[in-house]
Amino acid sequence: MSTITAVDTADVRFPTSLSLDGSDAMNPDPDYSAAYVVLRTDAADGLEGHAFVFTIGRGNDVQVAAIDVLRPHLLGRDVESLLADMGGISRELQGDSQLRWLGPEKGVMHMAIGAVVNALWDLKAKRAGLPLWQLLASMSPEEIADLVDYRYLSDALTRDDALAILRAAQPGRAERTEQLLATGYPAYTTSPGWLGYSDEKLVRLCREAVADGFPQIKLKVGSDLADDVRRVALARETVGPGFPIAIDANQRWDVADAIAWIRELAPFDLAWVEEPTSPDDVLGHAEIARAIVPVPVATGEHMQNRVMFKQFLQAGALQVMQIDATRVGGVNENIAHLLLAAKFGVRVCPHAGGVGLCEAVQHLSMFDFVAVSGTREGRMIEFVDHLHEHFVTPTVIDHGAYMAPVTPGAGMEMLDSSVEEHRHYGDAR
Amino acid sequence: MSTITAVDTADVRFPTSLSLDGSDAMNPDPDYSAAYVVLRTDAADGLEGHAFVFTIGRGNDVQVAAIDVLRPHLLGRDVESLLADMGGISRELQGDSQLRWLGPEKGVMHMAIGAVVNALWDLKAKRAGLPLWQLLASMSPEEIADLVDYRYLSDALTRDDALAILRAAQPGRAERTEQLLATGYPAYTTSPGWLGYSDEKLVRLCREAVADGFPQIKLKVGSDLADDVRRVALARETVGPGFPIAIDANQRWDVADAIAWIRELAPFDLAWVEEPTSPDDVLGHAEIARAIVPVPVATGEHMQNRVMFKQFLQAGALQVMQIDATRVGGVNENIAHLLLAAKFGVRVCPHAGGVGLCEAVQHLSMFDFVAVSGTREGRMIEFVDHLHEHFVTPTVIDHGAYMAPVTPGAGMEMLDSSVEEHRHYGDAR
Repeated sequence: MSTITAVDTADVRFPTSLSLDGSDAMNPDPDYSAAYVVLRTDAADGLEGHAFVFTIGRGNDVQVAAIDVLRPHLLGRDVESLLADMGGISRELQGDSQLRWLGPEKGVMHMAIGAVVNALWDLKAKRAGLPLWQLLASMSPEEIADLVDYRYLSDALTRDDALAILRAAQPGRAERTEQLLATGYPAYTTSPGWLGYSDEKLVRLCREAVADGFPQIKLKVGSDLADDVRRVALARETVGPGFPIAIDANQRWDVADAIAWIRELAPFDLAWVEEPTSPDDVLGHAEIARAIVPVPVATGEHMQNRVMFKQFLQAGALQVMQIDATRVGGVNENIAHLLLAAKFGVRVCPHAGGVGLCEAVQHLSMFDFVAVSGTREGRMIEFVDHLHEHFVTPTVIDHGAYMAPVTPGAGMEMLDSSVEEHRHYGDAR
Repeated sequence: MSTITAVDTADVRFPTSLSLDGSDAMNPDPDYSAAYVVLRTDAADGLEGHAFVFTIGRGNDVQVAAIDVLRPHLLGRDVESLLADMGGISRELQGDSQLRWLGPEKGVMHMAIGAVVNALWDLKAKRAGLPLWQLLASMSPEEIADLVDYRYLSDALTRDDALAILRAAQPGRAERTEQLLATGYPAYTTSPGWLGYSDEKLVRLCREAVADGFPQIKLKVGSDLADDVRRVALARETVGPGFPIAIDANQRWDVADAIAWIRELAPFDLAWVEEPTSPDDVLGHAEIARAIVPVPVATGEHMQNRVMFKQFLQAGALQVMQIDATRVGGVNENIAHLLLAAKFGVRVCPHAGGVGLCEAVQHLSMFDFVAVSGTREGRMIEFVDHLHEHFVTPTVIDHGAYMAPVTPGAGMEMLDSSVEEHRHYGDAR
C-alpha cells in the first residue's frame, strides 16, 4: 500500500523563438514550453510519475495553475487502487462538475487533466517495468475497452465496437511486438519546412531528410502563395518525383481560401494538406476535403477532444488523424481516438515535435500497431529534431524510423537539470 | 490622454451548493463564482471597467490566472486609442499566438480574453454616459461591422452580409429604443425547475412564475426519466395547456438517448429542449433536431466560439441560439453570433442566471432588437432570481420583462462589499 504524497509542478520554457525553429504561418515566435508535473509516492520503490502539457510560451503558468487545482483529487490517494482502475480516475477527473464548467472537455483544464492522467500512466508503466506501449499492448481487450469514456461517442463507437476491434487484433500481437523491436515505427520529418528558413537551408535539409531515410517530408505554408509555390517547387525538385511531400497551413485559411490555395499547390503532388482551417470547423474541413480530392486532409494537433474527432470522421472531414499526446485528456482519450480511427478505417499519423511530443506520442502509435489497428501501412509519426536532449529517454531515430523504447515509463520524464535550468518564474515581459 | 494603470483581479465565490439552487443533471453542486477584473486608468474621471467570467467554483482561480496573463497587453496602454478601436484590441488579444495555443479560441484562455474585452466595453460605455446596449445601438453599421472577426466565418457570414443586416435595421432604431424603454425585453424563468426542489416547491414556483407575468418557464431534466415525466406533467397541469414549458438536459444524453427521452416528454408540449448532448456535437444535435420535429433544439451556453455557432446554423442543429455573456471572447464575438443568427433567421434567447449573467446579457439582446434583428418576436432572456443584490445595477424585472438599463456601463460591476466579503483565497478543500 502506498499513497500519493506530492503533485509537484514546474513552468519550463525554452527560448526557441530566438532561432525561428518552429515558426509557421500562425505561430511566428513560439517559445516551446512544458507545464510539467511530477507525482511522488511514499512507496519504497521511489518511482515517480512524470508528464506535461506542451505549450508555446506565454500562458504556460496558467496551464501549470490548472494542473495545481487537480491536487486535491490525488494527494493522499491509494496508488494501487488508482493504477488498477485508470478508466475510473480518468472519468473522476473529467467528471468534476465544477472544473468541467471551464471547458467542458477542452482547453486549459482538459489538457491539465490529460497531464495528470499521463503522469499516472508513467508511474504505472514504471511499476510494471515496461515501456507504456508494451504495458498497454499487454492488457486484455476488455481492460483496454474499459479505459475509454464512451459518453457522446455511442452514435459512432460503442464498447462492443471497441471490443470487436481489439479482439480482431489479438492474434499476432507477439509477432508485431517483435517487428516493432526490430524495425521500429516509420517517422517523417518537418525539419526542412519551417517558414523562417532560407531556400538554401530548405534544399539542404530536404536532401538530408532523404539521405537519412525518412519516407516523407513536410513544409509549412500559408503566409504567402507565391512564396509557397516557390518553396514547394524547390522541395519537389530536390527530392524528385514520387517522394511524399506534405504541407501544413496551421489553420491559416478560411474555407474558400483553403480550396483556392491548395489547388495552386496540388500540381506538386501533395501527400496531405494539414490544418487548412480552424480545428473547430468540421463542416469546413468536409467541404475542403471534397473539393481537393485526391489530396487527403490531415488534422488533429488542436483537436480538443474525442467528440470533435468523432464528427470529423462521420463527416469525412479528415483522411489522416493526427493525434497529439498532450492536447487532450491523456492516454485514455487518445485510445478512444485510435479506436475511432480503426472503426472508420482512417490512418493515424501523430503530431509531434515541440517539447517531448515525440517521446510521448510514439507509445500510442506503437500500441496501436500491436493491439488496435494491427498495421503500420501508410502510417508514420512526425519527427522534429528539437530539444530531445532534455529527456531521460530521448527518442531514437534510425533510418527514418522511431526505434521502440524499452525503458519503463511513458517517456515524458525530463532531466532534473533541464527543468531547473529552464524553469520560468513570473512573466518576463 | 489617459493610460491603463491597473488590471486588478479577484476570485469571488458564493456558496450556492448549500441550497441546491442551480442544481441540474450535470452540475449537482455548483458554487456560483466570478473571476473578476477591474481596469483602472489615470484619467480624472475616475471611471473603471468592470467585468468577469462566470464559473461554478473550483478552478475559478485558474480563470483568474488566465486574466492575469493578459495584463502586459493592457498596462500602460493609451485608453482613448484602445476604446476607439474595440475591434482592434479584440483581434490583438485573440491573435497573441502563444496564448492562442491554449485554445485556440476556447476554454479558460478565451473566456479570459472575453472578460478583458467586456471590461473595456464597460469603461467605454461609462465614458460615453450610456448603457452598453444604447452605446452599441448608437454606432453606425460600418462601426459595428468592424467589431467582428470574420476569420473562419466567411463561408457563412462576410462583412458585406453583416453590413446588409445592420443597414436593413437602421430605420426604426429610435422607435424600437422607445419601445424598449417603455416595455422592456421579455424574460422567462428557470426558477421553478431546478432538480433539487420538491414537487410542492415546483408547483408553487410554477404558479408564481405565471402570476409574475413570465411568458415561459423551464425545467431541468435528464437525471431520471420517470421523475422527469412526473415533474413535467405536474408543471403542465399547473400552468395549463398552451403555456410554454422548455426543458433543459444540460448535456446529459448521447444522441440516441436524447431522442428516446425527448419523445417521452414531447406529449407535454415542449417550447424547446436545451443542451440535449455535448455542446461540441454539431452533427449529433442536427440528428436530434431532425428526429424530434416540431420540438426546437436550443443550445449555446457552452458554445465555445463563433466557429461552432456557424456550424450549428449551417447544419440546422439549433433552432434557438442561447448566447452567453462570459463564455466567449466578449461583446465582439457575441455580435458575430447575433449577426449569424440574423443571417440564418434563428431567434436568440440568451442563457443567464449564475452570477451577473442576467445583468450582462440583457444588453446584447436589447442591442439586437434595436440594431440587428429588429424584433423581439419569439425571443426572451432567461431569468433566475439569484445573487442580483451583489451588483451595482441589478436587473429590474417587471411583469415578466427585463426593464432596459439606463445607467452607463455594461452592467457587470459588483459591489465592493460583495467582492470583499466573498473573496476566496486558496482552495478550501
